[in-house]
Amino acid sequence: MKQIPYKIYLEESEMPKYWYNLRADMKTKPAPLLNPATGAPMTAQELGGVFCEELVRQELDDTTPFLEIPEEIRGFYKMYRPSPLVRAYCLEEKLQTPAKIYYKFEGNNTSGSHKLNSAIAQAYYAKMQGLKGVTTETGAGQWGTALSMACSYFGLDCKVFMVKVSYEQKPFRREVMRTYGATVTPSPSMTTEVGRRILEAHPGTTGSLGCAISEAVEAATTNPGYRYVLGSVLNQVLLHQSVIGLETKAALDKYEIKPDVIIGCAGGGSNLGGLIAPFMRQKLRGEADYRIVAVEPASCPSFTRGIFAYDFCDTGMICPLAKMYTLGSDFIPAPNHAGGLRFHGMSTTLSQLYHDGYMEAVAVPQVEVFQAAEQFARVEGILPAPESAHAIKVAIDEAERCKQTGEEKTIVFGLTGTGYFDLVAYEKFHDGKMTDYIPTDDDLARSLSKLPKLR
Amino acid sequence: MKQIPYKIYLEESEMPKYWYNLRADMKTKPAPLLNPATGAPMTAQELGGVFCEELVRQELDDTTPFLEIPEEIRGFYKMYRPSPLVRAYCLEEKLQTPAKIYYKFEGNNTSGSHKLNSAIAQAYYAKMQGLKGVTTETGAGQWGTALSMACSYFGLDCKVFMVKVSYEQKPFRREVMRTYGATVTPSPSMTTEVGRRILEAHPGTTGSLGCAISEAVEAATTNPGYRYVLGSVLNQVLLHQSVIGLETKAALDKYEIKPDVIIGCAGGGSNLGGLIAPFMRQKLRGEADYRIVAVEPASCPSFTRGIFAYDFCDTGMICPLAKMYTLGSDFIPAPNHAGGLRFHGMSTTLSQLYHDGYMEAVAVPQVEVFQAAEQFARVEGILPAPESAHAIKVAIDEAERCKQTGEEKTIVFGLTGTGYFDLVAYEKFHDGKMTDYIPTDDDLARSLSKLPKLR
Repeated sequence: MKQIPYKIYLEESEMPKYWYNLRADMKTKPAPLLNPATGAPMTAQELGGVFCEELVRQELDDTTPFLEIPEEIRGFYKMYRPSPLVRAYCLEEKLQTPAKIYYKFEGNNTSGSHKLNSAIAQAYYAKMQGLKGVTTETGAGQWGTALSMACSYFGLDCKVFMVKVSYEQKPFRREVMRTYGATVTPSPSMTTEVGRRILEAHPGTTGSLGCAISEAVEAATTNPGYRYVLGSVLNQVLLHQSVIGLETKAALDKYEIKPDVIIGCAGGGSNLGGLIAPFMRQKLRGEADYRIVAVEPASCPSFTRGIFAYDFCDTGMICPLAKMYTLGSDFIPAPNHAGGLRFHGMSTTLSQLYHDGYMEAVAVPQVEVFQAAEQFARVEGILPAPESAHAIKVAIDEAERCKQTGEEKTIVFGLTGTGYFDLVAYEKFHDGKMTDYIPTDDDLARSLSKLPKLR
Repeated sequence: MKQIPYKIYLEESEMPKYWYNLRADMKTKPAPLLNPATGAPMTAQELGGVFCEELVRQELDDTTPFLEIPEEIRGFYKMYRPSPLVRAYCLEEKLQTPAKIYYKFEGNNTSGSHKLNSAIAQAYYAKMQGLKGVTTETGAGQWGTALSMACSYFGLDCKVFMVKVSYEQKPFRREVMRTYGATVTPSPSMTTEVGRRILEAHPGTTGSLGCAISEAVEAATTNPGYRYVLGSVLNQVLLHQSVIGLETKAALDKYEIKPDVIIGCAGGGSNLGGLIAPFMRQKLRGEADYRIVAVEPASCPSFTRGIFAYDFCDTGMICPLAKMYTLGSDFIPAPNHAGGLRFHGMSTTLSQLYHDGYMEAVAVPQVEVFQAAEQFARVEGILPAPESAHAIKVAIDEAERCKQTGEEKTIVFGLTGTGYFDLVAYEKFHDGKMTDYIPTDDDLARSLSKLPKLR
């Protein structure tokens, strides 16, 4: 067997030429999006008013297993991909574990996260459609940053509605987006009707993701030549993110490594769905078996404490209904520091797979997550994003168990991004001021009582 | 010829096993450091009170051309090296230039800059000497961050004196260092005698690099088991940083590419000296010729407007005298945003080479530097540090000239790091609030009038 380097880099010629569409191999397909007004499945025409045409096609296609990655997107991918699959030799030594730990590091680009994989694809299809620009919302800022970079590359205008509290607390995120030429508007704003309405009703509000979505959708549908784009949850996003898993699998195959456990953090599912895609394919086809573990924050535990039902994707209840594990669109997670893992629901595809027993899920409290993050940073060098640190925490737990049992398991986890913009959270952690917020059963019962009743 | 990929990554087996010591091939050696009290060259014994033994040996060795990189350091290098040599295809297309542009990107590690190459070496020798820890100062924070990471890896204590104004303005830098377990003290502080003296004399002072150096040196010499380490200017630092140039040359040679111009930013010389090392070797030995260009800020123009003379390395005048291009140790650069390029002097090695006509130098104003930085970010994706953007600016100028003349020159420049911690500067630039400060001839005459008179 070839000697395994610290970092496995594929050659450019080994990079994926196709995205893999997980749904094609699912026996039970994810349930369709429903029109909230009629209860009927959303049509391509209905979706086309908001989203780009080709992206609507991808969203609705649950039968084609492989879609060719356009040449232009592959060209852009080459600027920062292949991303390295790193053998965590130093962490293994520190833990004194017989386990072998690998991580796929997606933070090696200026956006600092895996979000760029889908941002560039969505910007490309917007460009191909001859659009002037796109609109979106951003909370933590990873998606907005990635989309700004992608739009800059294709010369598209990019309007980002940033949750006001983040806009004020994360000025650096805002400046990166401006560097790439995006317009960043704190939400709620006076630039949209819905924004003005919300500001009138709640003058001092610091905004919410739900409100920012509403503004971005309005801006897309009222400005000719614009469409709305989204960085997670949707099937199209999981499709684009499959590049993470395809590269991971190609790198492992190259060195004849077979993972036992695959671990990823899960907010809306963009990273996890991408990382596990080709492994889940084998599992769905009965060709191989793996343990697949979704990690979510204990403060926003949609898989582990939510229910599997149709719900709104946004707080404003203007978007289609999706069948997913949800805490209720009314659920407001306590202020944790993993902004990318604060969505009340979960990708419909991942929800169906979890429901059908193909995946496990675990919820972890944030202080332990930051302990794992710091432990990891000190030995592996990389400063992880709080979101990514959820996966680190569970990978370390797994490796510790191997130490007890003596098992030489191979663990693969997704390191989705870097924590350069999350140092306020690290500061709190260092100063011992970080706490854990875990919703009570009553909290959840309350928000779950408001699920839409389908006719 | 092999097809040239976007990013040339060496195989682990192709990574340098030796550092290259530029001084060995210089006909006129850099002048020795002098004891300010006696005017005599500093001895190994004198230096050994402040610096680690092996590092003193490296500092004084101007004859051995190649020094083996210890196995442990090569092991650490593998965690983030080889760094990519990137072909700037997108920038070339944007500029419509026939020039071919390559950049060696050193920002792909958590410290975010090339500083880690020397930090890990210095920490290693401190560990081998059985020390408890090291002390240092940091201004912009790149060096402090890199050293914290390196000390964390070897289990060494790390005391960083951070210029107070930076400590307050750059809390994120501070938190990264704390994440890696370093103690970060705002300077001047009450923890050293010199700090207390300065605070008594100047109660409201926000500190200076010279003051932080003095505190760090005092902390090293008064705490048993500690030594002082420095991130630039010294010969040992250029030695360690030669790994940048050696990798660059190996990558170019692999694809039979011969550069015409090599460009690097220059503050104390750590990056430039490392990048050019193997190319300068060929030039010194008459084996090949290249244009080599140092880029400095117009606000701190030591090469282009300083004089070549013995001067103090620190504002506090406690360090040895070095013969270098200097603006006078009394020179205080106007507040620009390239904190790593604000040193009043320059590496003695690079100073001698410049004096002997082996290099060119150019000074550039900061608004143009940020214009180049933004232009680069938008097409190449990477958000550059302001320091690195000095090299980008001159590389773009060179490529624009090629467009005029039709020359297909090959340009290589060093992209030393990322700008995640410099977004206050980007914000000023976006808001049109950035200005240029260029010292007058009178300013320079004043600070240069205070050079030490050697007996």
